[in-house]
Amino acid sequence: MKLADLGEDEVIQWLTSRLPTSSEVVVGPGDDCAVVATEKRGVYELLKTDALVESVHFLRSQPAQKVGWKALARAISDVAAMGGTPGFALVSLASPPEVELSYWRKFYQGLTQAAKAYGVTIVGGETTRTSGPMVVTISLTGTVKKAHLVRRNGGRPGDAIWVTGRLGGSLAGRHLSFTPRVAEAAWLVRYFRPSAMMDLSDGLAKDLPRLAAASGVGYSIDLNALPRNRGCGPDQALRDGEDYELLFSLSPRDSEKISAAWSRKFPRIRLSRIGKLTRREEPGTQLRGGFDHFRVA
Amino acid sequence: MKLADLGEDEVIQWLTSRLPTSSEVVVGPGDDCAVVATEKRGVYELLKTDALVESVHFLRSQPAQKVGWKALARAISDVAAMGGTPGFALVSLASPPEVELSYWRKFYQGLTQAAKAYGVTIVGGETTRTSGPMVVTISLTGTVKKAHLVRRNGGRPGDAIWVTGRLGGSLAGRHLSFTPRVAEAAWLVRYFRPSAMMDLSDGLAKDLPRLAAASGVGYSIDLNALPRNRGCGPDQALRDGEDYELLFSLSPRDSEKISAAWSRKFPRIRLSRIGKLTRREEPGTQLRGGFDHFRVA
Repeated sequence: MKLADLGEDEVIQWLTSRLPTSSEVVVGPGDDCAVVATEKRGVYELLKTDALVESVHFLRSQPAQKVGWKALARAISDVAAMGGTPGFALVSLASPPEVELSYWRKFYQGLTQAAKAYGVTIVGGETTRTSGPMVVTISLTGTVKKAHLVRRNGGRPGDAIWVTGRLGGSLAGRHLSFTPRVAEAAWLVRYFRPSAMMDLSDGLAKDLPRLAAASGVGYSIDLNALPRNRGCGPDQALRDGEDYELLFSLSPRDSEKISAAWSRKFPRIRLSRIGKLTRREEPGTQLRGGFDHFRVA
Repeated sequence: MKLADLGEDEVIQWLTSRLPTSSEVVVGPGDDCAVVATEKRGVYELLKTDALVESVHFLRSQPAQKVGWKALARAISDVAAMGGTPGFALVSLASPPEVELSYWRKFYQGLTQAAKAYGVTIVGGETTRTSGPMVVTISLTGTVKKAHLVRRNGGRPGDAIWVTGRLGGSLAGRHLSFTPRVAEAAWLVRYFRPSAMMDLSDGLAKDLPRLAAASGVGYSIDLNALPRNRGCGPDQALRDGEDYELLFSLSPRDSEKISAAWSRKFPRIRLSRIGKLTRREEPGTQLRGGFDHFRVA
């Protein structure tokens, strides 16, 4: 069996399902970040690694500075989606030797912009040669108060499903210049405590089933309620991926209050109620598609 | 200017030299690991990222289990070389889709062996597709008592230069099955406090000049004193690389005591005094060569 015969989630689950764990591990593989205990009571550390591959996540012809921004902002988005604050980053570059140093200089400028914008300090880098496409791997730490940690697995039937911003059209360029929802996530976990949350990296059609599966629930969404970027139909909003918006579930009671509070706090960012979580056995929506790294069919 | 025109150290220095830092950063780019403050007084966190590239660090024909061992053991060796204890690891795999799942399964078996052997917990993994060679990136955290932290930059003229184990011949297979010197490093920082230390990854000829440059000193070594693996001449001991032994400097007074103490504690592992650090302006040894990722000439 080859990787191409399985989806990305199956590959990683198959590889990591039998790993030994320890009492210090709060959340292991399968969520946006790993979560481990720290020496400080009530504070967890978040750990994330994320790779960008040339011709998969970016093209060599695209501005290196934007690629650098994207590389770090993706990992920052994952830390935010757990309710956390990003901390320290390490950068590993696998590069063909013929790439110009000025390319990597601009890449680092973009990294540094993202680091400054979100309070990250880049503490290390390493480089290695490759004969193939460039591979950039970011490692990022973060911290989260225990009371603020939100996982994918807390959704309950009846919770409303919410999404920030607008979806679709990432390939038109937004995938290189998105805004990770750090402030928005911090506000959400402080004032509304979503029952489950994740960031939308592979498209709602791929990511909502992940959140529902982790929570052991089904879902029902109103395709007409999807917040779409200009020029995008529902299918693009579902399947383009790389939106880096927040997807979260919230109790019905909190869902009555959040819209007004959100509009006061973030008047320029849309917040949309797109459906609700259901009992798994209820007839709901069945989404398919979205971006998968390995599946060929 | 292309990466091929510069050495690996120059590339990374050029890229990272102007990065912003913060008061929580104890050691930034340029040592075996980054070091950051933690919530616990007197304890630092170590952060390391390290990538293995197919056809550079391993061949697809080599046993996947050994490649997995190597991937994690390399990062563990870096944590040990700062005087630290390894903690949590994340694994990022960039893989061509045609690779068999059983390959990665065996790779993970090797990872898990190394994790168990050295007290590491693997807390996350991610996978991505690539059209090129496999790239495996490990991120590893660790902790070190402030009093035990050893950097590369504390060597003083007159300190003796020591190396553990034997050098050379890594390509004959030792590069896939080495033993990171975790227990040895922990003992050294507890009882002897080296003035500078690092692990030998690119060969003594490359790494000793790095330690000396970081410490602002010169060095003089006795090529006949180099501990060599069977079948290796001095040149291989200097330049093969991937020894993953400890290189450290120690005051003359401690250097008189260490041999006997070491032999009692680690009777089966050689410890060799190979020379001394000098004032930079003194005539000493000039080493060249060793493994460089980018330099072509």
